[in-house]
Amino acid sequence: MTADPDARAGRDRPEPEAGPEDALVRALVGVVGDRHVLTDPAVTAPFETDWTRRWSGRARCVVRPRDTAEVAAVVRVCAAHGVAVVPQGGNTGLVGGAVPVAGGVVVSLTRLDGLEPVDVLAGQVTVGAGVTLARLQEHVAAVGLAYGVDLAARDTATVGGTIATNAGGIHVVAHGTTRAQVVGLEAVLADGSVVARLGGLVKDNVGYDLPGLLVGSEGTLAIVTRARLRLVARPAHRVVALFALDDLAAAVQLTAHLRQRVAGLTAVEYVERAGVELVVARAGVADPFAGRVHAAHLVVEVAGAEPPAEGLAAAVADAPAIRDVAVAEDGPGQARLWVVREAHTEAIAAEGVPHKLDVTLPLARIAAFRAALDQLLAARWPGSRPIVFGHLADGNLHVNVLGPGPDADRLDAAVLELVAEHGGSISSEHGVGRQKTAYLHLGRSDADRAAMRAIKRALDPDGRLNPGVLFPASSPAAT
Amino acid sequence: MTADPDARAGRDRPEPEAGPEDALVRALVGVVGDRHVLTDPAVTAPFETDWTRRWSGRARCVVRPRDTAEVAAVVRVCAAHGVAVVPQGGNTGLVGGAVPVAGGVVVSLTRLDGLEPVDVLAGQVTVGAGVTLARLQEHVAAVGLAYGVDLAARDTATVGGTIATNAGGIHVVAHGTTRAQVVGLEAVLADGSVVARLGGLVKDNVGYDLPGLLVGSEGTLAIVTRARLRLVARPAHRVVALFALDDLAAAVQLTAHLRQRVAGLTAVEYVERAGVELVVARAGVADPFAGRVHAAHLVVEVAGAEPPAEGLAAAVADAPAIRDVAVAEDGPGQARLWVVREAHTEAIAAEGVPHKLDVTLPLARIAAFRAALDQLLAARWPGSRPIVFGHLADGNLHVNVLGPGPDADRLDAAVLELVAEHGGSISSEHGVGRQKTAYLHLGRSDADRAAMRAIKRALDPDGRLNPGVLFPASSPAAT
Repeated sequence: MTADPDARAGRDRPEPEAGPEDALVRALVGVVGDRHVLTDPAVTAPFETDWTRRWSGRARCVVRPRDTAEVAAVVRVCAAHGVAVVPQGGNTGLVGGAVPVAGGVVVSLTRLDGLEPVDVLAGQVTVGAGVTLARLQEHVAAVGLAYGVDLAARDTATVGGTIATNAGGIHVVAHGTTRAQVVGLEAVLADGSVVARLGGLVKDNVGYDLPGLLVGSEGTLAIVTRARLRLVARPAHRVVALFALDDLAAAVQLTAHLRQRVAGLTAVEYVERAGVELVVARAGVADPFAGRVHAAHLVVEVAGAEPPAEGLAAAVADAPAIRDVAVAEDGPGQARLWVVREAHTEAIAAEGVPHKLDVTLPLARIAAFRAALDQLLAARWPGSRPIVFGHLADGNLHVNVLGPGPDADRLDAAVLELVAEHGGSISSEHGVGRQKTAYLHLGRSDADRAAMRAIKRALDPDGRLNPGVLFPASSPAAT
Repeated sequence: MTADPDARAGRDRPEPEAGPEDALVRALVGVVGDRHVLTDPAVTAPFETDWTRRWSGRARCVVRPRDTAEVAAVVRVCAAHGVAVVPQGGNTGLVGGAVPVAGGVVVSLTRLDGLEPVDVLAGQVTVGAGVTLARLQEHVAAVGLAYGVDLAARDTATVGGTIATNAGGIHVVAHGTTRAQVVGLEAVLADGSVVARLGGLVKDNVGYDLPGLLVGSEGTLAIVTRARLRLVARPAHRVVALFALDDLAAAVQLTAHLRQRVAGLTAVEYVERAGVELVVARAGVADPFAGRVHAAHLVVEVAGAEPPAEGLAAAVADAPAIRDVAVAEDGPGQARLWVVREAHTEAIAAEGVPHKLDVTLPLARIAAFRAALDQLLAARWPGSRPIVFGHLADGNLHVNVLGPGPDADRLDAAVLELVAEHGGSISSEHGVGRQKTAYLHLGRSDADRAAMRAIKRALDPDGRLNPGVLFPASSPAAT
């Protein structure tokens, strides 16, 4: 089940020993201090593999700078020593995007956790890359605002990591992806120089949109150190409903119906029967419809300045067939409905290590894709169990497959090809990381990939920033 | 008053004659046909100067391809002949951004005017770069949707031109700038290759966001040929109000108040007494407050599924001092209020050729900037008249100066330095074009400009796409 990214990267030279005699380590200690250069394998191990445990690599060391100046100095030291730099946030990734190549230096950004006062007039805040989403939300809630991106890993995932992956999460239907929240960034480039656009101006067209380019670039062009983020209103009221439906096609119809009829739609999450059964069995979640079994479900959240329950009820009165519905207007009731969706990851993990793929399909073809996926798995991986859920308004499905055996790469290839055949994207919100570098051609033409490689070479000519991520590790210039 | 961009560009070699013997012209005729290669100066003149008439240049010829394949072939022909390519849309620009360098080929994109059927399920549409904003709006209105960007030049400005400048306009407060509308693009790169991301997937994180990078790149990285655009709901009701206030500081306070209290705010436009007097005198606009004179005004529009007038009235009940107000719920009444803002450009032009600058200020400092601007003009250009208006929610002011004399460059420098001193942006929504290439340092650090030049070199190594725009004409590599 475990693929070795180092082997893939063709880096079979022996790993250098990191000890007190190591000139690189000494230089890094000179920048961040002895306490913040980690070399003991027992201490560095958690930084060397991501949440999936599919990807891992032995770092030369882990460095924990405290501010932008230290990050820049670390990058310059690494440049002088010709070693790779691997930026890392909360390390909640699922595609190997923050896992070191052998001998690389992991730059952990969690100490860059400054929270500036909220600029209420502009509706913005500037925060360090290492701030977690949960701390950011708490900080801005104090002045009645919210950050537009939220996701299940909120207690650990950092602003920097979500910027690197252009994270989506549950509120994209309302506020867009992370890129839509980023007003400006500060970042350290491959040569250690610092670019900063933190003035908070929504209209600032002086040349190319570097912040937008860095969002989603997965640490391959720069290391984001601070971000200026737009905030959204914190609605006074919300309602959560769990709809039961016959199938994914019906869920798509209801999603389209809701989008046209309901103002303030903030989440449309899809879960299937197999997932609901799993969260009931494995995560202690109460059976939402007390034994009545349905193939498909939508968790729908609507927010507003006024209580939105009546509007939602009116909107679904003429909606396509709804088999069952549970509605919650109070907090505990809403939590009971949300957990049906949010307990998926935990319940799946309790069942075994799943194979995970994160993809987008056009809504018009998503039901056809879902049916074809079952056929593919039944034919090639009999006995495997797909647990599929996701952010349906965005066409984003999280395909979890339990029990496919030690065949991860071939399963990746087969599912991603199926996605491409249905006009979808092989990478929705988790990133390309190391997992999908071999499949970029399924989503990008030769000309497009050539343009991306040209940009990579322009900003990181020596290929030192997060090598092996986005592009195969050999070198972006060589592919 | 007229600066000569060719002289600036240091291109003093004699202009080549474009005639039937011209191998370049023959090759272009081979691509697009005889009718669509314009060489007669009487015919090409309108393509060689922009709306301001401040910028002009003599093109080798004007080419009018009809589709992406022809644009790509034109770019390859120009590459083979080593000549510059200047993409042009509706030519409503104000900063020389689509005006040719001497000997360059203007590629006019107005024939790329295809409108694909609206994808109602996705809430998106794919259109050619040459479609005007007005035609786009009309096309999508037929299915009850709207495009999020609107501006006064809507009948002539094209989708491609608005993408090249990341145009803002009157609805940024509700929907963001053009970049926020662009789901994907098709574009021709400097080598004639074509990149296309038109699948309509909102979440499609497979490497770098090329479409976002091309938005606002002013034709210097690629020629946009088609765009996949998100659409917004077409609200059933709207209300327009004209508020009279004591000064810009009061207008900022009211803007902040409205943003916090009013859902569905779609425009917050600022106009001053001098501008109102001018539109009454020069554009035949009815005096909105019948002789009662106010220093500052906001045109506010609120849209919603329900009539929003009551909500607006409630929201302003406890607003900071409002001196006068006119409200219109019916179309003709709304048009009478909107014209107070929209007639500005015409009324100013009737008064003489203004000097124009388009800038953004932080709302917290915009009133201080406005006062300092008056002081600057009084001290250095006595007798000049500033007519200032703009999109206040975005901090975007259009600074028009009547009668500063033949001193355009020094006025540019002085005003833009003042903007930078107040933490603002020297380029809000019109682009850098040729006008502001000398002032990038006021908005971007050395490292930032170096990164932008590296990207330019990566995607256009020979500097053939729109030379002289964004970067001084000599060469992006040389500065």
